[in-house]
Amino acid sequence: MENKSLALLTDLYQLTMAYGYWKHGKADQQSVFHLFFRSNPFRGGYVIAAGLQTALKFVQSFRFSPDDVQFLATLPGNDGQPIFEPAFLEYLSRLELNVDVDAIPEGTVVFPHEPMLRIRGSILQCQLLETALLNILNFQSLIATKASRIAMAAQGDSVLEFGLRRAQGIDGALSASRAAFIGGCAATSNVLAGKLYGIPVRGTHAHSWVMSFDTELESFSAYAEAMPNNCVFLVDTYDTLEGVRQAILVGQHLKVSGHRMVGIRLDSGDLAWLSIEARKLLDAAGFKDSVIVASNDLDERLIQSLKLQGATIGVWGVGTKLITAFDQPALGGVYKLGAIQSATGDWLPKIKLSEQIIKTSTPGMLQVRRFFDGDGNSTEDMIFSELGPLSLPSSIVDQSDSSISHQIPLSTVFEDLLQPVIRDGKLSREHPTLHSVRTRTMEQLQQFHSRYLRFDNPHLYPVGLEQQLHELKSRLVLKARFPKHADDTA
Amino acid sequence: MENKSLALLTDLYQLTMAYGYWKHGKADQQSVFHLFFRSNPFRGGYVIAAGLQTALKFVQSFRFSPDDVQFLATLPGNDGQPIFEPAFLEYLSRLELNVDVDAIPEGTVVFPHEPMLRIRGSILQCQLLETALLNILNFQSLIATKASRIAMAAQGDSVLEFGLRRAQGIDGALSASRAAFIGGCAATSNVLAGKLYGIPVRGTHAHSWVMSFDTELESFSAYAEAMPNNCVFLVDTYDTLEGVRQAILVGQHLKVSGHRMVGIRLDSGDLAWLSIEARKLLDAAGFKDSVIVASNDLDERLIQSLKLQGATIGVWGVGTKLITAFDQPALGGVYKLGAIQSATGDWLPKIKLSEQIIKTSTPGMLQVRRFFDGDGNSTEDMIFSELGPLSLPSSIVDQSDSSISHQIPLSTVFEDLLQPVIRDGKLSREHPTLHSVRTRTMEQLQQFHSRYLRFDNPHLYPVGLEQQLHELKSRLVLKARFPKHADDTA
Repeated sequence: MENKSLALLTDLYQLTMAYGYWKHGKADQQSVFHLFFRSNPFRGGYVIAAGLQTALKFVQSFRFSPDDVQFLATLPGNDGQPIFEPAFLEYLSRLELNVDVDAIPEGTVVFPHEPMLRIRGSILQCQLLETALLNILNFQSLIATKASRIAMAAQGDSVLEFGLRRAQGIDGALSASRAAFIGGCAATSNVLAGKLYGIPVRGTHAHSWVMSFDTELESFSAYAEAMPNNCVFLVDTYDTLEGVRQAILVGQHLKVSGHRMVGIRLDSGDLAWLSIEARKLLDAAGFKDSVIVASNDLDERLIQSLKLQGATIGVWGVGTKLITAFDQPALGGVYKLGAIQSATGDWLPKIKLSEQIIKTSTPGMLQVRRFFDGDGNSTEDMIFSELGPLSLPSSIVDQSDSSISHQIPLSTVFEDLLQPVIRDGKLSREHPTLHSVRTRTMEQLQQFHSRYLRFDNPHLYPVGLEQQLHELKSRLVLKARFPKHADDTA
Repeated sequence: MENKSLALLTDLYQLTMAYGYWKHGKADQQSVFHLFFRSNPFRGGYVIAAGLQTALKFVQSFRFSPDDVQFLATLPGNDGQPIFEPAFLEYLSRLELNVDVDAIPEGTVVFPHEPMLRIRGSILQCQLLETALLNILNFQSLIATKASRIAMAAQGDSVLEFGLRRAQGIDGALSASRAAFIGGCAATSNVLAGKLYGIPVRGTHAHSWVMSFDTELESFSAYAEAMPNNCVFLVDTYDTLEGVRQAILVGQHLKVSGHRMVGIRLDSGDLAWLSIEARKLLDAAGFKDSVIVASNDLDERLIQSLKLQGATIGVWGVGTKLITAFDQPALGGVYKLGAIQSATGDWLPKIKLSEQIIKTSTPGMLQVRRFFDGDGNSTEDMIFSELGPLSLPSSIVDQSDSSISHQIPLSTVFEDLLQPVIRDGKLSREHPTLHSVRTRTMEQLQQFHSRYLRFDNPHLYPVGLEQQLHELKSRLVLKARFPKHADDTA
């Protein structure tokens, strides 16, 4: 899957549109598309960008194989006849991408309406990439964001991602393990994810281990004998606190033979109370350094609540709620045309209105500029178009209330977030390691005041449109709403 | 992915347990595990079993490759030393599965606590299969169930699965397309799913097509020229009803040239009102046979509501809410040890208690018997153990209230749901085609009274434990709770 082309991993309409563009001699018309989301997930205040490396691998390996084309030749339209004519299929089989891609690096904190990805190239090629790019970035960004929230709730405790069995399919697990690590998890239980992505792998044992022996004590002893330095005993198969006592007995044997019981795991019941009682038993028996691992439908809110109740849990195993982003299992990212090149070489900015104002797109060839205060804290972001020169100093117009605008002093430190990653179809920079992406997430979160990051009613981080872009958008909206009356200067 | 072994697609603890079993000479101890879920998703009354063929492919291709084993050799434990010793890795590299698998066929209506899969074999092998089997069956059954609910709400209208861009990863899309088809969808937009599984593929065009032309009319005309027999025009790029008028103009041109406009698509706004108004315009212009396709965050409840409002939508494009099972994105299936063979060859039934009664497992080597009335309607299910002879006539004990029990007349027609699918590691029957699985779903749903299938407060379909099994379970619970006092006969 890593190296095989997934060119058919797309919606059919991308191919019918590609066919239409090709038929109309528009296949090579240059265009620019932006990938962005419209609202933060989990009623939170931010998103962690993730999935870029996976997306770029998809782009790099994009190729229609002979059997892909053969399959397309069989597809019938509504009249039962083949949709595509042979010359177009021949065109596809020879197609090599030469798009340019700019992207916000993985591990960056991003906000609604900011393009995480900008694709520039022939409209046919841009269109063929849309669906898979959305699939990859939507999901990994969603999970990285969820993981960052859970890690935040754990306040420095290790969070282990245990979600494989409840994930949405095989890659719903693998790519989520990757994204969860980016977001702040310390390790995964998924061995294949460990192999593919170099993520640390962790695990203990299951109830079935205990059940396969005559007694719990026997089962713990057997486990200790096999792996004397890796014992985290699952204590809730029959009775949790009794299980802790059995673990202590085996821990004492381990100690005598020069080993160390790592800890115990709780997987059901009142985790706050049980962890407190288990801690007392462990401490009283001299196991002050043994850790209590907990699992069982944990998420950021439950962890926060357990912390408030004084739970003595040191490691959090998080499964279903993380791997599926249970409380909001999809990020609604979209991919919209921003501009198209006319026959004369001019770039024409484009807009889409639709019935819902939230669905109106922003025209242009967009970039995101992030401003910082003297302490290196992010203060606000400005979306602007690179199609024309940028007025300096820049003025920013509020996206929800255009009567609010202000000017940014020229001296303000800033960073442009979209960076070139693919030029003419080829990777233009090395992928950072997954560990460095994870570090970037931690550093990025430090740049934002906690009011933007908190779980309940977060402060809205300011993201505005640059003044000229705002005016362009307003003109295009008017022109689209009242095509007969608007002037034609847009 | 289809043929490559995914042996490492597992939780690390399966491998550490396997290592423990191997170290203790228990690797070949025979055991039986059951895969089941504990409650219905979506506050509904049933689940459609799905994913079996994918699961069986996983079992058939199970093999540790040389680089899998090499990777395992690098895994450190808590002391930084390799977890696994070389002889065990050597054992894994030579391992060939010889398990027996019994399964409830895909497309069957199933209920909580019923084993969908029964795996019998060495405890080591059963354990190594657990996580991937759960991943595959949990997800596909969840999506097939969601799709069946959506298809039910659509009352015979076509439901198209449009979810790829919002799915949880690549396989979160592909295997969901498969499951959605099993559950009742008519087609998918995902071309690769069409290629891999033979699912019909459908699509129209996107807003970007319209935006890439100077006017909406021009864009529709161009599309009609390229694909005169496949025109479903997306009409909401600028103004929906104006878009319908433009579509009609192009439809009239199509008609003149001997073609037929298939329909229009609505993707935003008040779908009830817009579809009614669009229908009037289409009908008045002589396009009574043009269909209205709708999309935009649809699910079974929204479709039901739109139907009640008189929406004139004939085809439903369903994306995010289906592909992620948005309102409950995970089915909590589990995999529990039912019995284990002693050194003397006796099968010992096993139970797990835990702190939550709902998590108590059922001991034995289980089978599910479904009873029917004279009209072929399913009336109730009985879970029983095949470890001993079954008393006839059978008595069934209610699972939530053991004071309720009744006898099934000997003459009652029944069917045992678990069927052999793998024997000694080899497939023992051909996979049915995906189309026949989909047909099975439809036929199965016909066997159940609508009170079990409705969305709100469905009637609980009766699933009981066979009398002897109930008694065995009660004895084992007592024995586990009060190990000193219970008798030892269980």
